[in-house]
Amino acid sequence: MKRKLNFFAGPSTLPQPVLEQLRDTIVEYQDSGLSLIEASHRSGTYDGVHTDAIALLRELLSVPEEYSILLLGGGATLQFGMVPLNLLSGGKSCDIVVSGSWAKKALADAEKIGKVNVIYDGKSEGYSNLPDTVSCTPGAAYLHLTSNETIDGVQWQTLPDSGGTPMVIDMSSDIMSRPFSFDNVGIVYAGAQKNLGPAGVTVVIIRKDIVKQSPDTLPAYLSYAIHEGKNSLYNTPPVFSIYALKLVLEYVKQQGGIENAEKLSIKKSSLIYDQVDSSGGFYRCKVNKAKRSRMNVVFNLPTEDLEKQFLKEAAEQDMLGLPGHRSVGGCRASLYNAAPVEWAEELASFMRDFASRNG
Amino acid sequence: MKRKLNFFAGPSTLPQPVLEQLRDTIVEYQDSGLSLIEASHRSGTYDGVHTDAIALLRELLSVPEEYSILLLGGGATLQFGMVPLNLLSGGKSCDIVVSGSWAKKALADAEKIGKVNVIYDGKSEGYSNLPDTVSCTPGAAYLHLTSNETIDGVQWQTLPDSGGTPMVIDMSSDIMSRPFSFDNVGIVYAGAQKNLGPAGVTVVIIRKDIVKQSPDTLPAYLSYAIHEGKNSLYNTPPVFSIYALKLVLEYVKQQGGIENAEKLSIKKSSLIYDQVDSSGGFYRCKVNKAKRSRMNVVFNLPTEDLEKQFLKEAAEQDMLGLPGHRSVGGCRASLYNAAPVEWAEELASFMRDFASRNG
Repeated sequence: MKRKLNFFAGPSTLPQPVLEQLRDTIVEYQDSGLSLIEASHRSGTYDGVHTDAIALLRELLSVPEEYSILLLGGGATLQFGMVPLNLLSGGKSCDIVVSGSWAKKALADAEKIGKVNVIYDGKSEGYSNLPDTVSCTPGAAYLHLTSNETIDGVQWQTLPDSGGTPMVIDMSSDIMSRPFSFDNVGIVYAGAQKNLGPAGVTVVIIRKDIVKQSPDTLPAYLSYAIHEGKNSLYNTPPVFSIYALKLVLEYVKQQGGIENAEKLSIKKSSLIYDQVDSSGGFYRCKVNKAKRSRMNVVFNLPTEDLEKQFLKEAAEQDMLGLPGHRSVGGCRASLYNAAPVEWAEELASFMRDFASRNG
Repeated sequence: MKRKLNFFAGPSTLPQPVLEQLRDTIVEYQDSGLSLIEASHRSGTYDGVHTDAIALLRELLSVPEEYSILLLGGGATLQFGMVPLNLLSGGKSCDIVVSGSWAKKALADAEKIGKVNVIYDGKSEGYSNLPDTVSCTPGAAYLHLTSNETIDGVQWQTLPDSGGTPMVIDMSSDIMSRPFSFDNVGIVYAGAQKNLGPAGVTVVIIRKDIVKQSPDTLPAYLSYAIHEGKNSLYNTPPVFSIYALKLVLEYVKQQGGIENAEKLSIKKSSLIYDQVDSSGGFYRCKVNKAKRSRMNVVFNLPTEDLEKQFLKEAAEQDMLGLPGHRSVGGCRASLYNAAPVEWAEELASFMRDFASRNG
């Protein structure tokens, strides 16, 4: 097959060797006489996969001992609700940085549960910027951040200093793309379908003292404490997605871990931003240079007609997923871990060529 | 490979042709140049899968037009919470039949949200029976039933007449094993990992007037109305599990639909119950004959030592998953749709032989 250049914002590209491993093991898993997805989640067949996936997350992300790692269903979208349900009981409040489309969803859910202080809102700047520092409200139970906004193309270059307020970070779209410190981190959550694997499993890394806050008035599935107490086996986990997660993590480790992922991520995103910046204004990126996302490079062309032509020609050259999100338009190249550097080079080359023909 | 005889209670066996289709399409899907699990859930590549899975559910289960079909994450366990969160707002109450281990979980969650009337509790009979009829509490928002209990081995032979109270039915472990009428049905929900596919997706069939009850105070993921409004694409769906669901449904249809599934289910379970009933008391099934499950045949041997020996020899003959649930012990043969009749024949033959040697 001719593999297409996959710039989808998520679900997105996976490492080719992982897809091949899935192909080779889906009918029979390790001489077990059955597929892994046919095995009971209480069986030894599955147990190693579950344990390995969690251990690899801990190793690759350098997760300290005082954090538990949960594997849940429902996507980051369920976490928008679970976070305030677990952390805002008893009339507590939280702070939030509204950095774009995803933060707005987290905000909407939190407001249904408790009091929310918006300590920054990027609206007036069209969500093209982020604050340099944060100042948390005294007494806030947590500060919610979105580390990367896939639609608006902004990303925290480093996590801010919350001054002790536990940070709850939606890291769905840039987890495993760079090392980060767990200082002041209360919870990190991430849907898998960008850098970690296929859709269907959500990683939640949560400080153990915060798990203890889960009120026992919550339905079982909504309680972090229930899941932690059963090592994410309170109910049947999404077996296939966790298996694929494990394979992706093994691949990341084999390729040099998170440091290598960061190096490649800088290289790939620079290739595209360099085209934007050297195009004499043909390509424009609305985002403050210091807040540009390495995962999702958003850009515009001089006219909507040229954008249409650009996207049409790109699609003809087997480049998938380059239209910007339907809510903002324009163009977007998503460059997750599994996208080879060659894809970014090919896109950069096409951008240069297109500009020279149409500039 | 020598395929093992898979009697796991779930996740459990899948049709071999479905596993082979998964193997053949996981690296590249339909000449698209990428895997389906790499494609955006907003892409045409995925759209057909989503639409087909829902259409096949509607066709095979004869779901009337006035019901919506949702595909969610979080398993039936999340539904234990979502049902009362959506249906018991404003101080409403519900009825429940406590038929075994799974009903108890549904009860525990509902009690956290609203007032619950237990109209039947099988506890005094060791959960070996079910009521012949139900009598709902006037004003109850719904009656919750568990159509089949995997641990206790009881099953409603036909759904009861609720007298107009909408029934909410956890059908996780016997959906698609027999036709049923939607009379008085408000909601049917089912984790996929028995008869529908691998773990990771939950089917929710919900009457459209009941969707309208979802209070807008719920976090987005917990609202049936939000999911229905976006055809289960409000957030990223569990793509792989939905694809596998579609393939399983195509296989069921090709094999003669739900009527054929029922015929085979009667045949397989009869083979095992016949061994129990003709063993002169060597094998005992605690369940009232009229309430026996066709999906999960539970039985005991004269002593725990003989049970251990039985399970040891069965495992040596490549029969997996026959120990009863750890909470009740004994033996259990789960006979979901994808288990071939030959497996039941082989198990029946082994039971006969074991009894003759040890009786």
